[in-house]
Amino acid sequence: MKKLILLLVILIGGSVAAMAQDGARQHRIVMQLTSGDTLVHKNLMKQFRNMKEAAPTMELEVVCHGPGMDMLMSDRSVVQEKLKEFSAKGIVFLACENTITERKLDRAKVLPEAGYVKAGIIHIVERQEDGWSYIKAGF
Amino acid sequence: MKKLILLLVILIGGSVAAMAQDGARQHRIVMQLTSGDTLVHKNLMKQFRNMKEAAPTMELEVVCHGPGMDMLMSDRSVVQEKLKEFSAKGIVFLACENTITERKLDRAKVLPEAGYVKAGIIHIVERQEDGWSYIKAGF
Amino acid sequence: MKKLILLLVILIGGSVAAMAQDGARQHRIVMQLTSGDTLVHKNLMKQFRNMKEAAPTMELEVVCHGPGMDMLMSDRSVVQEKLKEFSAKGIVFLACENTITERKLDRAKVLPEAGYVKAGIIHIVERQEDGWSYIKAGF
Repeated sequence: MKKLILLLVILIGGSVAAMAQDGARQHRIVMQLTSGDTLVHKNLMKQFRNMKEAAPTMELEVVCHGPGMDMLMSDRSVVQEKLKEFSAKGIVFLACENTITERKLDRAKVLPEAGYVKAGIIHIVERQEDGWSYIKAGF
Repeated sequence: MKKLILLLVILIGGSVAAMAQDGARQHRIVMQLTSGDTLVHKNLMKQFRNMKEAAPTMELEVVCHGPGMDMLMSDRSVVQEKLKEFSAKGIVFLACENTITERKLDRAKVLPEAGYVKAGIIHIVERQEDGWSYIKAGF
Repeated sequence: MKKLILLLVILIGGSVAAMAQDGARQHRIVMQLTSGDTLVHKNLMKQFRNMKEAAPTMELEVVCHGPGMDMLMSDRSVVQEKLKEFSAKGIVFLACENTITERKLDRAKVLPEAGYVKAGIIHIVERQEDGWSYIKAGF
């Protein structure tokens, strides 16, 4: 009987915890950037500012792959200063290693703020599986 | 013991309710429009018609931000008549207030059918957290 | 009391099964292709290869609608050979019947590898409701 009650406590405790989390609305967002368009990159910086303002404690990961890797390259990114600022404020930028290989990008030129994932899309999929919300960047 | 049974009833009742809902397939969809391309806007109207036909009772919110706000502006939207029709049929159109401020859009020219959200992306994220499906509009 | 224990076993068994699945990370991905851009189609083939490598047992459905149907048409697709290969490896390609009707496409020219769905977006929504991760293709 004790074990029964213990199991119930675990089950119900979990539900209550889930509800509490929902009340606090701790947003976890995985954003996909595949566009190499510098207008998209500049616009993204405005969106980050608005998002930070609306949800200061959000977790945000920006996964860059394909042409989107341009935003993380020191020799072509037009938003390096803003990107450093947002990185310092906790926004996580992730470079796709498959893209680096395929596009023969120079890894030494990837901005030091960037983290790495092997396959961009699979990382985004795993975040969704963990309950993160997905946003595709770009127009 | 009574409380134990009560708790079980709540837990299991919840599961059954969830399954019933799944059977009924009441779709809840949050769509993101960031494109200012009028071809995208026209194509969207066709999609709404198809979606309404396939799922007459769906809940659909269309969040317009960035260049996508053009679809909700009376001085530039090319789909105003259709949009009024779909609004009357229950599709919800939402204007992003951050975009209005940044693009210095005239709020008096926003179509009267539109509702408002402060930050478009955060609204989309919250809908996903509530279990709505996300669709990014555009080609 | 026996029934009570049985119910608990079902509830907890379900949770354990869910956790096990999470551990195994059996990815289920529904991808939306609306772009008719052949560069997007070619890039997609590279992504499929990378995804297959990172997650060999994933389930992947590619829903083609609007201009995206071009990738499935024998008279205009530029990736037919690769598409046949990936289809043989288990990637599922789905043609939107609404698009075929609206664009007056010749159904006899749809690649034999393709399956069909009535309304592309509603299919994507249903997959998300079933817990699949959503990825919008294109730049």
